[in-house]
Amino acid sequence: MFFKVKTSEEVLEILKGFSPVGEETIFIGEALNRVLSMEIVSREDLPYFHRSSMDGYAVRAKDTFGASETLPAFLELDGEVIMGRAPSGAVSPGKAIRISTGGMMPDGADAVIMLEYCHSLDDKTIEVTRVVSPLENVISPGDDFKKGTLIFGKGCVLRPQDLGLLAGLGIENITVFKRPKVAIISTGDEIVPISQMPESGQVRDINSYTLSAFCSQLGAVPVNMGLCRDNFSELGEMVAGGLEISDTLWISGGSSVGARDMTVKVLESFDDMELLAHGISISPGKPTIIARIGNKAVFGLPGHVASAMVIAEVFLNPFLARLSGETVSSDDNHYYLKAKLERNVESASGRDDYIRVKLDKRDGRYFADPIFGKSGLISTLVEAHGLVKIDRNTEGFYKGQVVDVMLFKSFKGAL
Amino acid sequence: MFFKVKTSEEVLEILKGFSPVGEETIFIGEALNRVLSMEIVSREDLPYFHRSSMDGYAVRAKDTFGASETLPAFLELDGEVIMGRAPSGAVSPGKAIRISTGGMMPDGADAVIMLEYCHSLDDKTIEVTRVVSPLENVISPGDDFKKGTLIFGKGCVLRPQDLGLLAGLGIENITVFKRPKVAIISTGDEIVPISQMPESGQVRDINSYTLSAFCSQLGAVPVNMGLCRDNFSELGEMVAGGLEISDTLWISGGSSVGARDMTVKVLESFDDMELLAHGISISPGKPTIIARIGNKAVFGLPGHVASAMVIAEVFLNPFLARLSGETVSSDDNHYYLKAKLERNVESASGRDDYIRVKLDKRDGRYFADPIFGKSGLISTLVEAHGLVKIDRNTEGFYKGQVVDVMLFKSFKGAL
Repeated sequence: MFFKVKTSEEVLEILKGFSPVGEETIFIGEALNRVLSMEIVSREDLPYFHRSSMDGYAVRAKDTFGASETLPAFLELDGEVIMGRAPSGAVSPGKAIRISTGGMMPDGADAVIMLEYCHSLDDKTIEVTRVVSPLENVISPGDDFKKGTLIFGKGCVLRPQDLGLLAGLGIENITVFKRPKVAIISTGDEIVPISQMPESGQVRDINSYTLSAFCSQLGAVPVNMGLCRDNFSELGEMVAGGLEISDTLWISGGSSVGARDMTVKVLESFDDMELLAHGISISPGKPTIIARIGNKAVFGLPGHVASAMVIAEVFLNPFLARLSGETVSSDDNHYYLKAKLERNVESASGRDDYIRVKLDKRDGRYFADPIFGKSGLISTLVEAHGLVKIDRNTEGFYKGQVVDVMLFKSFKGAL
Repeated sequence: MFFKVKTSEEVLEILKGFSPVGEETIFIGEALNRVLSMEIVSREDLPYFHRSSMDGYAVRAKDTFGASETLPAFLELDGEVIMGRAPSGAVSPGKAIRISTGGMMPDGADAVIMLEYCHSLDDKTIEVTRVVSPLENVISPGDDFKKGTLIFGKGCVLRPQDLGLLAGLGIENITVFKRPKVAIISTGDEIVPISQMPESGQVRDINSYTLSAFCSQLGAVPVNMGLCRDNFSELGEMVAGGLEISDTLWISGGSSVGARDMTVKVLESFDDMELLAHGISISPGKPTIIARIGNKAVFGLPGHVASAMVIAEVFLNPFLARLSGETVSSDDNHYYLKAKLERNVESASGRDDYIRVKLDKRDGRYFADPIFGKSGLISTLVEAHGLVKIDRNTEGFYKGQVVDVMLFKSFKGAL
């Protein structure tokens, strides 16, 4: 067999060869975290009229020139701007019109003097104790965005405020990239559904649940294909079926050499298959297979859940971002946090080691405690808040050294 | 009117008076990011049998003692462990049974010697060139979790690996806190639905979309009640209707003093209403109202979207976490990132200022550029990646100073 063990960098490069999987038009009310596949250009000025940004009086700025506590200016009150309506009249010299925050500026006025600096002397007269400059407390047309401005580029992930802006511009429907569909197959003669009591030597299916939730968390749509026995034709049929309904296929299991070899043989039975990686120089997660069948990426993930999850965090996270159409400016879109190591960690050279760490915050500083344990144990993942990479050219880190912790997505600042 | 301007700390304390809103039982396949309302105790050892963590041979460790490249041990091959089945026989002295990763250890064997250190001499004999210690390459019952261990406490937010562990334990259904329902009312005579072309003085509804998406992002369920005019009885009816179907009610709008006063009057018309805060010493967002009607929190948020979103990030984010049942060990569950300020920022004393900042990454370091602009502008939010707090006892920060940036949830490490 032709061995193709790849480095992390080579794998990330390989995964750049896959692209988003189509577009759809949706309502902005359902577009949170979706990825734009179009550019948004403002088709009008926002706002499109002069608005007051304060409660006060619309005035001509020059009518306040020189006004102070000791030498106030006096203006004649000439009505009020009703919210949501065009002002009924203009401000003439020496006059003022009452206006509320968000109200439309009347013609003639170029500034708003805040209520705090005005006193009503009688029904018709106000005393102004401060100067306002032209455009003070006024939002002008296009102050937010001018007509024709490029607001969002293709690949932009939409946040609450971004949807608010689209609403403000009257854009109800937008074109976004489709969410990638991920077919997940869990293999192994020893695996039983979680509803079933395992007999001697059997274990329950963990990976389907872990990988499905991992997909959901990143905005992809998991399609759980169920369990598959270590059987060539059964796996072959499931792979064919999975490829038909998904954009990428993930097979987990096959931690033994025999099972892995069978997965490769099954993939090789597809005409248009290209083996892209057979092993990655990373720990845990080395026995990972990556292939292309047609234009779809197929991953053979380790059966050990901790190994599978490290591969998912390091490679499938940026891969799904790319498949989702996100503009990914670096290979990595994790949050990182600096923490002091609580213990020495060693690493074999020639491979990137990903150590699971548990974080603790003391006196406002983070400390990372490495969790040692076989990658067959899920407890090491459940106790961990993130991963620390030990590069293959580094022998390890010392206790007390400050390291970058790649956080699991669900981690929050509070500990 | 009785003024109750509160500090940020007082508001966070007030919000601790509200609790989660009920429980429901769901399938673990739908439990990502849900909050446990029960404790999970392992009802069995995980794993429940001795498993091999490597491909190799199950042996008695003492049969390998002294084995080396130059002085190998010879063992008699005695069959194979079939995956997913109990071994058919035990390992007797001087014998070895072939086993794959995840296979069940046969009686008599206490270690697995990896394939790499064994050579088949013939069908019946293997040569072993290394010593294994007892339990080497073996996962023992309870190595992951022992029967009776408290695995997850009440208030735990479930991550992909946590769901995997529940699957591994055969726990299909769990009891979680209900997702909080948030009724959202957008008020203002000047606001029109986004499907409608605004006439002079009118603007489109931005806040419903921004606040709804904000809720969704945090796992709450927004219930959009629609628009409401600045009318006492209309708002009163909408508030009553909203309270009936939700766990908390958010009214946005009323940036003018008159509209705010009316919101307070409407809330006061409810018998069991208690005004908890009328103004917060924070900028932007000062004109915020917090009340309790029955056991539900009602918020009167500023109409300016940027002000409303600052209040949402600073107060409603931890409030929703609490209502969701999350164990919140601090008042804040944001990610923070350290960045160097690109410009001086000043702050008025007596209030906490939240400056919106745009981040940039250069040479691996983050820089934060303050975005100045009226809080009526949504562009300041759309360009921002997060907020920098200037405490009310601080006069400001200097250019070049390193500050903590409270990141918006959607921010990713990559810029």
